[in-house]
Amino acid sequence: MTATPGHLLDIPHHDGSARYVSQAHPRLGDRVDLLVRVPHAADVSSVHLRATPDAEPKFTAAKRVASTEADSWWGVPLEMHNPVMNYRFLLQGGPAGYQWLNGTGVHERDVPDAADFRITAYDRPPAWSDEAIVYQIFPDRFARSAGADARETPEWAVAASWDTPVACRGPLTGRQLYGGDLDGITEHLDHIADLGITTIYLTPVFPGRSNHRYDATTFEAIDPVLGGEDALRRLVRAAHARGIRVLGDLTTNHTGVGHEWFAAARADVDAPERGFYFFDGESYAAWLNVPSLPKLDYDSAELNRRLFEDPEGVVQRWLSGPDGFDGWRIDVANMTGRHGIQDRYHTVARRLREAATHARPDAFVVAEHCHDTSRDALGDGWHGVMNYAGFTRPLWTWLRHPGHAPDFLGLPVIVPRLGGRAVMETIRDFSAQMPWETLTHSFGIVGSHDTTRVRSLVGDDSGQVDVAAGMLMTMPGIPMITYGDEIGMEGAFGEDGRRPMPWGDQTAWDERIHEVYRALIAARRSSVALRSGGLRWVYAADDVLVYLREHRDEVALVHLARLGHDPVRLPAGGLAGIEGGRAAYGTGLSFEGEDVVLRATGPRVEVWTWAPDR
Amino acid sequence: MTATPGHLLDIPHHDGSARYVSQAHPRLGDRVDLLVRVPHAADVSSVHLRATPDAEPKFTAAKRVASTEADSWWGVPLEMHNPVMNYRFLLQGGPAGYQWLNGTGVHERDVPDAADFRITAYDRPPAWSDEAIVYQIFPDRFARSAGADARETPEWAVAASWDTPVACRGPLTGRQLYGGDLDGITEHLDHIADLGITTIYLTPVFPGRSNHRYDATTFEAIDPVLGGEDALRRLVRAAHARGIRVLGDLTTNHTGVGHEWFAAARADVDAPERGFYFFDGESYAAWLNVPSLPKLDYDSAELNRRLFEDPEGVVQRWLSGPDGFDGWRIDVANMTGRHGIQDRYHTVARRLREAATHARPDAFVVAEHCHDTSRDALGDGWHGVMNYAGFTRPLWTWLRHPGHAPDFLGLPVIVPRLGGRAVMETIRDFSAQMPWETLTHSFGIVGSHDTTRVRSLVGDDSGQVDVAAGMLMTMPGIPMITYGDEIGMEGAFGEDGRRPMPWGDQTAWDERIHEVYRALIAARRSSVALRSGGLRWVYAADDVLVYLREHRDEVALVHLARLGHDPVRLPAGGLAGIEGGRAAYGTGLSFEGEDVVLRATGPRVEVWTWAPDR
Repeated sequence: MTATPGHLLDIPHHDGSARYVSQAHPRLGDRVDLLVRVPHAADVSSVHLRATPDAEPKFTAAKRVASTEADSWWGVPLEMHNPVMNYRFLLQGGPAGYQWLNGTGVHERDVPDAADFRITAYDRPPAWSDEAIVYQIFPDRFARSAGADARETPEWAVAASWDTPVACRGPLTGRQLYGGDLDGITEHLDHIADLGITTIYLTPVFPGRSNHRYDATTFEAIDPVLGGEDALRRLVRAAHARGIRVLGDLTTNHTGVGHEWFAAARADVDAPERGFYFFDGESYAAWLNVPSLPKLDYDSAELNRRLFEDPEGVVQRWLSGPDGFDGWRIDVANMTGRHGIQDRYHTVARRLREAATHARPDAFVVAEHCHDTSRDALGDGWHGVMNYAGFTRPLWTWLRHPGHAPDFLGLPVIVPRLGGRAVMETIRDFSAQMPWETLTHSFGIVGSHDTTRVRSLVGDDSGQVDVAAGMLMTMPGIPMITYGDEIGMEGAFGEDGRRPMPWGDQTAWDERIHEVYRALIAARRSSVALRSGGLRWVYAADDVLVYLREHRDEVALVHLARLGHDPVRLPAGGLAGIEGGRAAYGTGLSFEGEDVVLRATGPRVEVWTWAPDR
Repeated sequence: MTATPGHLLDIPHHDGSARYVSQAHPRLGDRVDLLVRVPHAADVSSVHLRATPDAEPKFTAAKRVASTEADSWWGVPLEMHNPVMNYRFLLQGGPAGYQWLNGTGVHERDVPDAADFRITAYDRPPAWSDEAIVYQIFPDRFARSAGADARETPEWAVAASWDTPVACRGPLTGRQLYGGDLDGITEHLDHIADLGITTIYLTPVFPGRSNHRYDATTFEAIDPVLGGEDALRRLVRAAHARGIRVLGDLTTNHTGVGHEWFAAARADVDAPERGFYFFDGESYAAWLNVPSLPKLDYDSAELNRRLFEDPEGVVQRWLSGPDGFDGWRIDVANMTGRHGIQDRYHTVARRLREAATHARPDAFVVAEHCHDTSRDALGDGWHGVMNYAGFTRPLWTWLRHPGHAPDFLGLPVIVPRLGGRAVMETIRDFSAQMPWETLTHSFGIVGSHDTTRVRSLVGDDSGQVDVAAGMLMTMPGIPMITYGDEIGMEGAFGEDGRRPMPWGDQTAWDERIHEVYRALIAARRSSVALRSGGLRWVYAADDVLVYLREHRDEVALVHLARLGHDPVRLPAGGLAGIEGGRAAYGTGLSFEGEDVVLRATGPRVEVWTWAPDR
């Protein structure tokens, strides 16, 4: 028996986790001690750190600080000279005699800095967010309280009963109102708590002229259709009483055309609100030229004041007090503050975070940002992003059913179906663009209110939902579940997935999937390695992915199979202590001679945890 | 006969050159028409442009606009919505059904934006720089006029006669003064003009306390040891009379500790110059903590005024008038304006360029920047950089003699010796980090006053100097030659290469190499494809590199061999018109049946040019 060729246990490794970095939240001027794991098989004779203080490369020799059966450990200090430090390692030895180790692995030639490791000296995200598991709720569709019956249907809306099919396309789409409300959510906190959720994220609750409310008409009130401010306070209070956090959703890129600011701006060219928008006579700039969503102009000091600095302003007001939101999800964050020659993006992100943490010291801010975040999520503003690019899309390319070809948020072609190697490389490429802290505070997403649902993505084989959920709960980042995913709710695309939660129809609940989610969430919550370990890829082939989450006190090996595959044999010597472990999820591993053997005859999720040797 | 496997003629291609981009210098709001070459063999059914206006991905369908025997051409407009637009192409078809084409080639999975193509709406570099060929002169070592004998040796210096060996290490290194001067250069303009040089770049001529003068004591005068301001004006006048431009060298990161500003700052804490430096009581920040080079603090408005805004200030004064410099090379540009939490880099670069072009509308500014420039050379400040990372280093890894292991500017290990594939990939990776315009206005360098000389790099086989010079004169970018390289001057490292030019000893001149340089420069100057064509890689193996420079009126195929190699057969059908070409350098290609065959039995440089079919 010999190990499967192509496993990655012989490759030197570093990541931003506590296993390899002495402090995750250094301050400017601090010294951070870095470790590199160098398998003996890699034949490395020296290790140097390369950092670029003030943009000048600087090399520091690492020292061999420990040795185990399989690996040498090299240690080297990094000084936090600038707020963002990028670094990589130069290894002497190996076939080319010369190797760079960066966030995408080992390279036997020079590489640019783009995939360097990154660590920042900004304030850390709130501690509670380190271990969050988020449940996304689209308020109109989650649950309807008795109080909803008494409310009038607003002018823009068309009332729908709870069992009406969603109008996926056409003029009814944004207007169909099911009447879900905030008290409805409060009434179903048991379901959420039972699942193991720690944080609820509500899509917008400000009044708008659509069922999604991303077209706010004011930021001064909670939509009375949802029960108003009192209902929000009741929900947040009840959630907090259970230890569950609640995030709001704020659109900083634009308002609705019906917003009171926009009305004031149109009515009077001398109004202070006139400067909030990009007017050119009667015309104005709008999000993707959609006239109902006029774009905000952050050159306006008054806009900045009303949104950020004013303690009674938008960001601070709704975070204040014990019944305030615990943070914000920022809509269209990537475009905020950007318009032609104007680029105030980083300033806006910083001011927003300052305002949020001023109102609530442990506030959390996460940005909608669907693609490359390398220059946009450095930890100075948002704590994290919705990681569609580095998680959702690669996951989809692996698990989409050949018969279901979802499109992805504006991409003009269908999502391709790719093998595990491409999936690993894509995740690695995008993860390497972010500081580790940003990655670990970004939302892992298998689907959202804007996308296909995972149950539809995988097609007939519901066992592949387990694989998606398995990856979600075992990767770095904050897992986010869209309401209903946990019971196998379907939806071919965003609008189609915004179905009412079928509380009254238990036949619509896939209890097997429900139990899978419960068990995987429980596995994550009980494993420090899954919550905060590093990420070390071990094996990737078409139908199988294997990786380690390494923590000082615990290591987790994750085995994901989308289909049956040839056994994968790994040398147990490279995984010291693995024999003494246990199945944290699944039915366990096989040990044969010197090898650990991973098998699958169909979709499979295995999580094996053990205490490492040192 | 079949084409050699692994050639790249079947891969879709785009680059930033005029062959593929309708205007190189667009303005904000302009529409730029982009072309993509898609070989029929690539089996592509649709092409979309992906750009990210205001950081939001936007797709535009391309149209098939033309078809030739080998290729389809797809066209699509790009709007210059932001000053820097990055873009790539999504191709449907091929093995995965899904391919991204960016600056590093074709990828069958999602990729981050780091290697996107980039185009900018900033002012263009001066037209004369588009076709420049630069000759770097270290004034103390190039030529000594009769006037030098009359000058006193300054206090810091130790006089050396022209045939004294260079003191490469130890206390004498910076102090050894050979007495080369500006009139000496003027006297040897024939040599420079005969070579085909268009631009002289002088390392610093301000007074200092070292033979390299990167430790200026004033910016108000030209070092009398070099002949003073009058000699400089004579040199520039004589060069201009021959159509040769002259660049100065300015250190913006620091001054010498002997600088008059630093003296004023130390003498009086209330002096305006106090704010020019980072003082902390008696101590001060310095370049890499070298006390003789105190670092400048760009928070000081007065420093900005004296360097930039003031028409009599440093940047403007020496560029003004007919006998002024034609631009600046900026020393340690990468660190300028950066210090811990301070980052004024881009502001400094922009103000410097504004000042330079204010004083001299066709001024050129190039930055010393030795590594990844992806965030630092976007065209808003410097027109280009000294491209050590993307040209010098990969070239060295290919051509360094196994017996000569040079180190590279502070890198703690020797330069590895790699095959052509790694060289191509490295060049491609680094080139993809820059806008095309920055790349083409950056200095290609085979060696400088700071590095090993190419003649020493390649070891015994002087034929490999031809290969280095061949790559230098046929790649995008401004070729820069260090004085003496053209006659085979040796030097194992920077200091060792700063040898006096052996005017008096013709036996020290390698006239074969001299003729190679002359002929390669002439080839570049007479070929629009070599001067301004795109860059399309055709083949790379251990000992051979083949690429095309494509212009609408001419195509050049470049064949570089570091050693003998197996014949490379390329399908002539993919190189329409090649049969009608001619050897612009070398002895020509073979045609066998349907193939073009490239052969080498040792180091070889071939440049073949022809008029393309369309």
